Amino acid sequence: MTNLKGRLVLLLSGPNLNLLGVREPAIYGADTLEDHVAAASKAAAQLGLEVEHHQSNSEGALIDHVHEARGRAAAIVINPGALTHYGWSLHDALRAFEGPIVELHLSNPDAREPWRRTSVITPVATGCITGFGGHGYRLAMDAVAHLLRTG
Amino acid sequence: MTNLKGRLVLLLSGPNLNLLGVREPAIYGADTLEDHVAAASKAAAQLGLEVEHHQSNSEGALIDHVHEARGRAAAIVINPGALTHYGWSLHDALRAFEGPIVELHLSNPDAREPWRRTSVITPVATGCITGFGGHGYRLAMDAVAHLLRTG
Amino acid sequence: MTNLKGRLVLLLSGPNLNLLGVREPAIYGADTLEDHVAAASKAAAQLGLEVEHHQSNSEGALIDHVHEARGRAAAIVINPGALTHYGWSLHDALRAFEGPIVELHLSNPDAREPWRRTSVITPVATGCITGFGGHGYRLAMDAVAHLLRTG
Amino acid sequence: MTNLKGRLVLLLSGPNLNLLGVREPAIYGADTLEDHVAAASKAAAQLGLEVEHHQSNSEGALIDHVHEARGRAAAIVINPGALTHYGWSLHDALRAFEGPIVELHLSNPDAREPWRRTSVITPVATGCITGFGGHGYRLAMDAVAHLLRTG
Amino acid sequence: MTNLKGRLVLLLSGPNLNLLGVREPAIYGADTLEDHVAAASKAAAQLGLEVEHHQSNSEGALIDHVHEARGRAAAIVINPGALTHYGWSLHDALRAFEGPIVELHLSNPDAREPWRRTSVITPVATGCITGFGGHGYRLAMDAVAHLLRTG
Amino acid sequence: MTNLKGRLVLLLSGPNLNLLGVREPAIYGADTLEDHVAAASKAAAQLGLEVEHHQSNSEGALIDHVHEARGRAAAIVINPGALTHYGWSLHDALRAFEGPIVELHLSNPDAREPWRRTSVITPVATGCITGFGGHGYRLAMDAVAHLLRTG
Amino acid sequence: MTNLKGRLVLLLSGPNLNLLGVREPAIYGADTLEDHVAAASKAAAQLGLEVEHHQSNSEGALIDHVHEARGRAAAIVINPGALTHYGWSLHDALRAFEGPIVELHLSNPDAREPWRRTSVITPVATGCITGFGGHGYRLAMDAVAHLLRTG
Amino acid sequence: MTNLKGRLVLLLSGPNLNLLGVREPAIYGADTLEDHVAAASKAAAQLGLEVEHHQSNSEGALIDHVHEARGRAAAIVINPGALTHYGWSLHDALRAFEGPIVELHLSNPDAREPWRRTSVITPVATGCITGFGGHGYRLAMDAVAHLLRTG
Amino acid sequence: MTNLKGRLVLLLSGPNLNLLGVREPAIYGADTLEDHVAAASKAAAQLGLEVEHHQSNSEGALIDHVHEARGRAAAIVINPGALTHYGWSLHDALRAFEGPIVELHLSNPDAREPWRRTSVITPVATGCITGFGGHGYRLAMDAVAHLLRTG
Amino acid sequence: MTNLKGRLVLLLSGPNLNLLGVREPAIYGADTLEDHVAAASKAAAQLGLEVEHHQSNSEGALIDHVHEARGRAAAIVINPGALTHYGWSLHDALRAFEGPIVELHLSNPDAREPWRRTSVITPVATGCITGFGGHGYRLAMDAVAHLLRTG
Amino acid sequence: MTNLKGRLVLLLSGPNLNLLGVREPAIYGADTLEDHVAAASKAAAQLGLEVEHHQSNSEGALIDHVHEARGRAAAIVINPGALTHYGWSLHDALRAFEGPIVELHLSNPDAREPWRRTSVITPVATGCITGFGGHGYRLAMDAVAHLLRTG
Amino acid sequence: MTNLKGRLVLLLSGPNLNLLGVREPAIYGADTLEDHVAAASKAAAQLGLEVEHHQSNSEGALIDHVHEARGRAAAIVINPGALTHYGWSLHDALRAFEGPIVELHLSNPDAREPWRRTSVITPVATGCITGFGGHGYRLAMDAVAHLLRTG
Repeated sequence: MTNLKGRLVLLLSGPNLNLLGVREPAIYGADTLEDHVAAASKAAAQLGLEVEHHQSNSEGALIDHVHEARGRAAAIVINPGALTHYGWSLHDALRAFEGPIVELHLSNPDAREPWRRTSVITPVATGCITGFGGHGYRLAMDAVAHLLRTG
Repeated sequence: MTNLKGRLVLLLSGPNLNLLGVREPAIYGADTLEDHVAAASKAAAQLGLEVEHHQSNSEGALIDHVHEARGRAAAIVINPGALTHYGWSLHDALRAFEGPIVELHLSNPDAREPWRRTSVITPVATGCITGFGGHGYRLAMDAVAHLLRTG
Repeated sequence: MTNLKGRLVLLLSGPNLNLLGVREPAIYGADTLEDHVAAASKAAAQLGLEVEHHQSNSEGALIDHVHEARGRAAAIVINPGALTHYGWSLHDALRAFEGPIVELHLSNPDAREPWRRTSVITPVATGCITGFGGHGYRLAMDAVAHLLRTG
Repeated sequence: MTNLKGRLVLLLSGPNLNLLGVREPAIYGADTLEDHVAAASKAAAQLGLEVEHHQSNSEGALIDHVHEARGRAAAIVINPGALTHYGWSLHDALRAFEGPIVELHLSNPDAREPWRRTSVITPVATGCITGFGGHGYRLAMDAVAHLLRTG
Repeated sequence: MTNLKGRLVLLLSGPNLNLLGVREPAIYGADTLEDHVAAASKAAAQLGLEVEHHQSNSEGALIDHVHEARGRAAAIVINPGALTHYGWSLHDALRAFEGPIVELHLSNPDAREPWRRTSVITPVATGCITGFGGHGYRLAMDAVAHLLRTG
Repeated sequence: MTNLKGRLVLLLSGPNLNLLGVREPAIYGADTLEDHVAAASKAAAQLGLEVEHHQSNSEGALIDHVHEARGRAAAIVINPGALTHYGWSLHDALRAFEGPIVELHLSNPDAREPWRRTSVITPVATGCITGFGGHGYRLAMDAVAHLLRTG
Repeated sequence: MTNLKGRLVLLLSGPNLNLLGVREPAIYGADTLEDHVAAASKAAAQLGLEVEHHQSNSEGALIDHVHEARGRAAAIVINPGALTHYGWSLHDALRAFEGPIVELHLSNPDAREPWRRTSVITPVATGCITGFGGHGYRLAMDAVAHLLRTG
Repeated sequence: MTNLKGRLVLLLSGPNLNLLGVREPAIYGADTLEDHVAAASKAAAQLGLEVEHHQSNSEGALIDHVHEARGRAAAIVINPGALTHYGWSLHDALRAFEGPIVELHLSNPDAREPWRRTSVITPVATGCITGFGGHGYRLAMDAVAHLLRTG
Repeated sequence: MTNLKGRLVLLLSGPNLNLLGVREPAIYGADTLEDHVAAASKAAAQLGLEVEHHQSNSEGALIDHVHEARGRAAAIVINPGALTHYGWSLHDALRAFEGPIVELHLSNPDAREPWRRTSVITPVATGCITGFGGHGYRLAMDAVAHLLRTG
Repeated sequence: MTNLKGRLVLLLSGPNLNLLGVREPAIYGADTLEDHVAAASKAAAQLGLEVEHHQSNSEGALIDHVHEARGRAAAIVINPGALTHYGWSLHDALRAFEGPIVELHLSNPDAREPWRRTSVITPVATGCITGFGGHGYRLAMDAVAHLLRTG
Repeated sequence: MTNLKGRLVLLLSGPNLNLLGVREPAIYGADTLEDHVAAASKAAAQLGLEVEHHQSNSEGALIDHVHEARGRAAAIVINPGALTHYGWSLHDALRAFEGPIVELHLSNPDAREPWRRTSVITPVATGCITGFGGHGYRLAMDAVAHLLRTG
Repeated sequence: MTNLKGRLVLLLSGPNLNLLGVREPAIYGADTLEDHVAAASKAAAQLGLEVEHHQSNSEGALIDHVHEARGRAAAIVINPGALTHYGWSLHDALRAFEGPIVELHLSNPDAREPWRRTSVITPVATGCITGFGGHGYRLAMDAVAHLLRTG
């Protein structure tokens, strides 16, 4: 793995993801956000990576976290919640990040309401993983490790 | 009235509503937000309800209030301000609330600029009351009391 | 209350509302139109108002009723049924009425099919009440009383 | 055949169909509406069905006929004329009918002007038969008989 | 003048035109519909034509009048009111009329709300006269006389 | 019946119709494609027609079948499957066929997803039959027999 | 008639109208532009008006003519040719003219290609006359005389 | 792992993917399709799965492969190539498959031309993996193994 | 002429072009595809080029031919038939071809139905020749010879 | 060659083409407009044709040239520059020309900005030649000669 | 200069502008936000104005700053960052400010991605200055001074 | 300042700007175009620049001026009038100019009619200044001086 900005992966969770396990479990599953972060951290550790997690319901706070990751984190994994669809400021913040960015969704937004089919985040993401529930966190860490190895 | 999560009604006011009575009185009237909250509280008390009010110019803070209302408030009355038209994260937060939700607008947005004609909040509201100025707060409390009685 | 054109409220019901209690009770409830009119009349009486009700499946007949209300009724409460979405002639008729107009829907049209999300009536309504079932009739009378008192 | 509401088929003809045989015979053929109704009645009789026919140029009158068919007719065959394209109130009336509904067009609207390509009736029809001229009446009766046998 | 179906001109007025002189005089002027019909009749008489006038708020009744004019009237002058914008059945009825058709508007709809800019009647009209207030009736009679002379 | 190109009817089934009876039986019914072809052949025989059936998941192969039918078959009955919505090459092939063409759908596509509401085949079809399940095959043969008799 | 800027009517003919009588006579008639101008001048003289005519294929030259008419002509009658559909600069020039403006078309553009259905000139015209061929010039002069008398 | 239809994973590659390593290596990388299939097979073997691979430039052939997988393969991993954007027949074929489906893209289509941003396959996929180049094959096998374990 | 991949020109004909001379001769002329290929070959020979021709009704087969041309043919001349409008996979195949590509249409698609006005092939073509009937083949060969000489 | 209006070909160059060889040579090449006209004239001479060339930055002047060509030139070859996309008056002028019209573009507009993909000239052109740089002039003369010979 | 609310100019910088000099210097230049604020303050001082600057990545915080400027600042200069395109709440806040508002962009958004071409801020701005890099701050102060002098 | 093509600034005014001070002073102010040019010249002189001004109502003449500025003027300041919205030929002419281009509007077009919100000039402008009335000329000269100094 390259040594670029250490081995830190910033894991960001957007609005309402703190309700995971509570809100619409038929769509998002019964695991809580803490469960997912723990699984991601464990998977990261096996791949030689370290996870720092932040959740916020405010776009501004998420942007602050992206800015603070500059020069400190090697990659970002982000589940933007509904900001996926209108968070142009978050888009601009991510575009200024130098490392790889993985967009992660637990469900498959294209199979839901029409307004969930447009992502303003995808154009600045290196890649996307959607529809695999909590297992997506493990896949995202695997993808990040690969991108850092080969990037 | 059912006893579900007590008798508390969360009254939420979105961006710029703190300027009520100041901003564009020809459209929104001369009463201040404090006047409206007082009237709503009085009407609620007559109906056996209690009002807790929060105003914020930040979508994130409004979402936090909706989350904190879970398991504590019986209903939400919300005037989302301009977030009505693009607050998809607020939409998701409200969707995860179990009780009735009343969307309230002082003016009639459909009679104004085209961009004010689309509401992303209405699909998750139980019902809407628009165009009756400050009297809308009293109607909303009446509607909430009815919904809690019959819901 | 102002004495403008007496205390009469014209209550208009558009196409298919005569089927209330029969058609799609899961959406519209089990009460019949007669039940709703009786409740509205009772609420009106308590507020010092009198209700005259007409239902028609024909846009032309509804327009005739609006015209006849000119100079006779103080306000109009209208549930336009599907004319909500294309009744431009009804829109013009209501626009020529001098008193307040309340648009009333039992269900929340924005939460249903896309074509039910556009109202050609709202731009000429003073205010709207949607989604509260039969209780909306009582709210509408309350709103009318307020509008006549303060208008 | 099920005995549901007897053997009556309501045959409805929308605006301008009384001009059949007169208006644009190159498109609609030379037979009059009476010719078509007679052929439909004869075909129905052979299938053990009875036809009651109404034509009106008014959407409201057509809706009244649909309402009166409730609990009395087993099926509806309707050629909505130009109401096909904007008759949302007729759509709602048909949706409240319990039996099968066949939408019938003499010509093939999709091969004509663009505005004739959208039908607001089709979503509430069991099936459609278009483009076969007067023979469509016979096919519609055949289809109704089948639907009543198997429905 | 050709003798085709005598010298009768059917003058049709659509929904709400019975309110002329009352509704929005700033847009439509202070003359009543009766004033306009009288002026049209006088102008027609000078041109050797006779006027028969019908006003209705119902599209179905207007269609009936168009049908009855077939083989009896030489031309139609129609102010369709708001049916201008969605009266596809009226469109079909007019299309089946053999003589010239003049579409008449007192105001200039293209200078008003966007939804008033589309006419479904114009494609079946021989010509249109808009924006000249009551004088349009005189121009329309002049145009009809010319069309009948040269048609 | 005219003798034009004998009595052969080409019955074409587009992509995935070989799964009939297997795929989404709630929408398409439990009968297999073989059942439908047998029923169509039987109905055709009673009408003095003969059926030749081909199913393919490839637009190119279906076009080949249409070409081969030229000068050999008297009519085509086609259920284009999802090619209904984008098969412009199939459209062109059918347009070059001289006999009548019946478009057949087991379900009513207009009552399903929006993308199923546009047919690129209908503009080149003589007529369409949709929504009657397997009985549509019988109706289609009846329609073809009529078209050949009168065409 | 008011004395405002004398009795001069500026008659403007846009691109290609110099081909009248030559180009597509089936649509535009066999009379030449000179014929039409002569007829307009004669009609104007009978109404106490005088006509000054200019034709140009250049939008800039037409705008120059509109500017030069300011303070000199009492009214403008304009057939903008295809500039009807995109001549926004001509629109601005006409908007700055103080007298009445009549938009004139020989044919009925709404009955032709879709791109001919949008007029950027109509919103700044007092009224429009379309579809009456050369007779439209006489009607336009009649309308101008009326507008100047009553304006 | 469940034993449902053995351990077979059908790996499908759509049009032009046989050119991988040749076509636009700046976008798609230098590895050939054979390299990717070998890597996928190796990853699958480690997860107890077996890969069967087919590539075709014909939508019809791909549909045939999906049909043949029914009852034989436990899951499908598909890179649909440009059929992603218009392969509605392939969409229908996949919808009839009972096991999980993973949509795989080497590049991130949302960061390319607009027409590559719409996928007609995603609505029937369990999940998607895009933008990770050849490593996506390994992630897809990991995802499939997880889905089969937990599905 | 450069010696790049010899002097071979791949001439490709898409769906339904095998019907040339038969299908809609008013639009496409009376010459058969064989006539056109012979003329193209003769013109090519005069320019020192050799033509290899393939026609197919299947997009997949056409893509196969494009792939096989790689490293073997110097240029491609393609008349894509209706695939012009939706053949995105063919688009991708052509994009991977290194030599010049000429898109050829016998008629002028922009003068026909709206859906024929969009070409998904043009963005990857070096140039286009449309509307010159069979003579287009000669022009295309002339263009190819020029492009190979100067490319 | 027919003798219709002699052997004159009007070659028209629209706005900015006088900058050829100067403006964006990477797209349009290094040859000047004079070079292209000379080449076209030479090619025309070999085909027994004569070229008259005009360039203008004004749509009006180009229309004047088209009008003057009536009855004098046998054909028009036109590169409309950016008027391609909005020159509806030029469209009307060309439509009134009796001989063949060839639309010529040096580059391939469909491979550039979206607004360059719509041509209002193509619907009135006999055929188009795009993307072959200066060689297009030679091809256009060849096409004209063919059209005059066979037209 | 008027004395209205002193000489204070509120300078607001939206999301991600704290990265100026770091993020995409090819587009935004190498100067930091601090450099720009210093230059603006110096230019303001020369014009007798004083600058108060706030940057935030949160729309809510920016709205708070606009509210606090009411009655305290004479003008606002705002670079809204990506909120330019969806910040309707910020729009409402600015609309309630009584003094002049200058919208400032360092780059020219219309020359970038399509989504950057729509500004929801411009309709409430007095004027805009875009595309002049850091020099825009000096121009904005100049414009503000002029507006305060003349407003 | 660089010496590139001397110190000349071409100031261009599009259609109808010669009416400044006359046309709609409420929007555009009472100063005439001559006033604005004098102010611009004075400001330019203070910055060591010289202004050459041309106004035309013809797009062609404006393009001629842009061409003549090539190699002679250092920069262009242009107020395109209504050509802002459809002057694609002017767009192409400006794109071929080597120096900086400033687009100038006296009013703020985004706050007016919808069709004034799209500029086809902005994509080829270095920067824009809108909404500051006549003061915009001074700002534009300041901007040009800066661009020439630093460009």
